[in-house]
Amino acid sequence: MTAGTAAPAAPRTPPDPGRLSINTATVRAQWDLGQILDGCARLGIRGVSPWRDQVRAFGLEASARRVRDHGLAVSGYCRGGMFPASTEAGRRAARDDNRRAVDEALALGARCLVLVVGGLPEGSKDLAGARAQVRDGIGELLDHARPLGMPLAIEPLHPMYAADRACVNTVAQANDLCDELGDDGLGIALDVYHVWWDPDLPRQVARAGRRRLLAFHICDWLVPTRDLLLDRGMMGDGVIDVPAVRALVEAEGYDGAHEVEIFSAEDWWKRPPEEVLRTCIERHRDFG
Amino acid sequence: MTAGTAAPAAPRTPPDPGRLSINTATVRAQWDLGQILDGCARLGIRGVSPWRDQVRAFGLEASARRVRDHGLAVSGYCRGGMFPASTEAGRRAARDDNRRAVDEALALGARCLVLVVGGLPEGSKDLAGARAQVRDGIGELLDHARPLGMPLAIEPLHPMYAADRACVNTVAQANDLCDELGDDGLGIALDVYHVWWDPDLPRQVARAGRRRLLAFHICDWLVPTRDLLLDRGMMGDGVIDVPAVRALVEAEGYDGAHEVEIFSAEDWWKRPPEEVLRTCIERHRDFG
Repeated sequence: MTAGTAAPAAPRTPPDPGRLSINTATVRAQWDLGQILDGCARLGIRGVSPWRDQVRAFGLEASARRVRDHGLAVSGYCRGGMFPASTEAGRRAARDDNRRAVDEALALGARCLVLVVGGLPEGSKDLAGARAQVRDGIGELLDHARPLGMPLAIEPLHPMYAADRACVNTVAQANDLCDELGDDGLGIALDVYHVWWDPDLPRQVARAGRRRLLAFHICDWLVPTRDLLLDRGMMGDGVIDVPAVRALVEAEGYDGAHEVEIFSAEDWWKRPPEEVLRTCIERHRDFG
Repeated sequence: MTAGTAAPAAPRTPPDPGRLSINTATVRAQWDLGQILDGCARLGIRGVSPWRDQVRAFGLEASARRVRDHGLAVSGYCRGGMFPASTEAGRRAARDDNRRAVDEALALGARCLVLVVGGLPEGSKDLAGARAQVRDGIGELLDHARPLGMPLAIEPLHPMYAADRACVNTVAQANDLCDELGDDGLGIALDVYHVWWDPDLPRQVARAGRRRLLAFHICDWLVPTRDLLLDRGMMGDGVIDVPAVRALVEAEGYDGAHEVEIFSAEDWWKRPPEEVLRTCIERHRDFG
């Protein structure tokens, strides 16, 4: 292949607008959960993915009722995980908290509980050890979640979060965990922000297949990115070829939600929330 | 394996202090290249790795002479690369500039020319296309560098730089390029900052082997990291198990420099440069 003559991208098929889901972090700075659910329903958005702290603040029962009243699909529940700890007591606390997260996900009728698995325990440099704790923690949580029928979705996080948020950093690792622990009730939440750079992505999405692909999150990678955590972009404002990643999951038969999850302290969290949701609808249509 | 019982790390063998090299970016804010070379020599540091802009400012001949006068080893020359461009003219300019970088590296007696390969061309989302341009660009540069005997060291950069600095983001990719282009005069610069998170690292370092391991860079990953580019830490201040990575390269027979490269706008670049160099010596001894 000569310079500049990489195969042209396949023509983009517009996404089904009915698959749009809003991760409630996207307007968390402006609205409480009730307002977000109402806002989504008002604008014709059919799916949401709420965060635990927002559910706690609004009330679990009230949240579940509001979701039902609006007929919203819950594309995922954010989040369980954070398994590694430096003490047995810490691991036990994580285990108990994760079981509660499974129960809450059930009450909300969520498609899956998303797992952000956690990074290094305080003071540790033992990444392999943290990864072993993650494997054991997921295995233990599966014993609780499988009989209840709540799928766990491992979300590989961008390698820049390996120390403090998640030491599962590639789809390959998530697939390895599914292989080891069994993928009955265990799968993967694929977020374009975390995986777009990965040269192994096509192979690993194919390896995951429809069975493991439990969630698909979209946003964009901004250049420059001014903050490691809170500077995600709206689809179309960055460099991620979202339709190309969507084509990979759709080729496997994925027909779930396209969930917009944007942490944006200096931009989208400062805008009027209806404008943000309307922009999500437009950008999903044009760049999703 | 039960939670928390990952295999304990092997006991650390202290590094050979004679292998310490200073990447001149580490004190670039305080000193010009002449001052850096003099400072290193004064403190008994035996290796340096200069940047092109510093060499240009101090003069190539003057830089080479000063290096020789102090008997310093040049563990690498930073940097060539930045291959992808949106136009043929842009690619030609990169090619010509990279050839000059090879010639300068020769004049300085550098161990290798480090390649930071470049990211997406302006306005592009075609990462696979950029990677193809990188492969072609390195292949073309090898035609110039091989007969001159100047090894090219591909530096995989952390995935957070995939868009704007380097679309080679794993050691696996660098190894693939060496396989494809032939590793006569082509190898890898391994920087702990870029690769510490990679679960595939042990396998890929073994795959690289002594022949391809041309450079070894050290610093640390801070938690939190406040800036994607300019917030690297001094060894010991972050979460990277540097001795564990060093053990991997030494197991392959690597016996080259341990090059300290720290971009630190708010910390180390604001300290007295002799203090920085003395700290590099101490931290290399204690945490390298």
